[in-house]
Amino acid sequence: MQELKERILREGKNLGGGILKVDGFINHQVDPALMDACGRRFAELFADVGATKILTAEISGIAPAVMTALHMGLPVVYARKSKPITMPDQVFLTLAPSHTKGRTVELIVSPEYLGPEQRVLIIDDFLASGQTIMGLVRLASAAGASLVGIGALIEKRFEGGRDLLAPLGVPIKALAVISDMRDDKILFED
Amino acid sequence: MQELKERILREGKNLGGGILKVDGFINHQVDPALMDACGRRFAELFADVGATKILTAEISGIAPAVMTALHMGLPVVYARKSKPITMPDQVFLTLAPSHTKGRTVELIVSPEYLGPEQRVLIIDDFLASGQTIMGLVRLASAAGASLVGIGALIEKRFEGGRDLLAPLGVPIKALAVISDMRDDKILFED
Repeated sequence: MQELKERILREGKNLGGGILKVDGFINHQVDPALMDACGRRFAELFADVGATKILTAEISGIAPAVMTALHMGLPVVYARKSKPITMPDQVFLTLAPSHTKGRTVELIVSPEYLGPEQRVLIIDDFLASGQTIMGLVRLASAAGASLVGIGALIEKRFEGGRDLLAPLGVPIKALAVISDMRDDKILFED
Repeated sequence: MQELKERILREGKNLGGGILKVDGFINHQVDPALMDACGRRFAELFADVGATKILTAEISGIAPAVMTALHMGLPVVYARKSKPITMPDQVFLTLAPSHTKGRTVELIVSPEYLGPEQRVLIIDDFLASGQTIMGLVRLASAAGASLVGIGALIEKRFEGGRDLLAPLGVPIKALAVISDMRDDKILFED
């Protein structure tokens, strides 16, 4: 998506070590009009997969997932990283190593909101190593739900996440695909 | 807002001890159309305060704040509860006791996105004891920004947050005001 790529080039910062800072419009400050446009684009890309629920992970996945859900007319569930007191004792829980956090995080979903009848579209901010998204895939699988697609705002192709997720056999779409971040560059594919 | 009150009565659960479970449409699963309607309502209520930025706290404030920001054409900043590696060393940080978490949480905002020229509208999911919102007020104040309004989806009037915030002298609006949750009830004001 041209608008997102231009914004990354204009305001994104390559902090080295594969870390892309997009805190000015996605990860700390959010540009709601940009997220709305991204949500509309995901809704087009996944119009035909028959999704009944969108799944994301707190925290940074929430804004793009909610906007996508709005345009698709679907509910969105965000996996929690700690279990709130309002959640039942029996939950779906998986562990996912977090590259940017340097530790393993829990991803927790209540069985109240994810079940065998659901067709799940996963939306997140980044597709990098794919570990967080694979954690969400395991949660959907544990709930007996069907996975129908995976969307990310930004893919860091060089971190291999797409290779990890490809065997799942569902469409994987990213709105901006970065092929190289060496030497302070931010290079997009094609 | 009638639509929100009806949803609370239909799907909200009074878990006792003043805890209202709204995990089916706000706090774990999100109804994006309802959040969109709430955002539109906040945009009407705060149309005249001259806000230039919306401030909220992760995690549950993000969906209503982003929708409000969309309808007001403003950026939204969500205070982080832990400092990501993309944030500069020097930050605005305050501590806020969390009723539902049973501990004190950090609220952190980067000075990159909050400064003296900003007119800040705070939007959050709950106004209960007011401690989280007061934490956000302190962050805005530390940045030298002006506070112009406070909005919450749901106010638990009996927890006293409005009394804590009233001396700030800005408009405080809640879309559903609960006056009483004793004996498994959920009673709205008026």
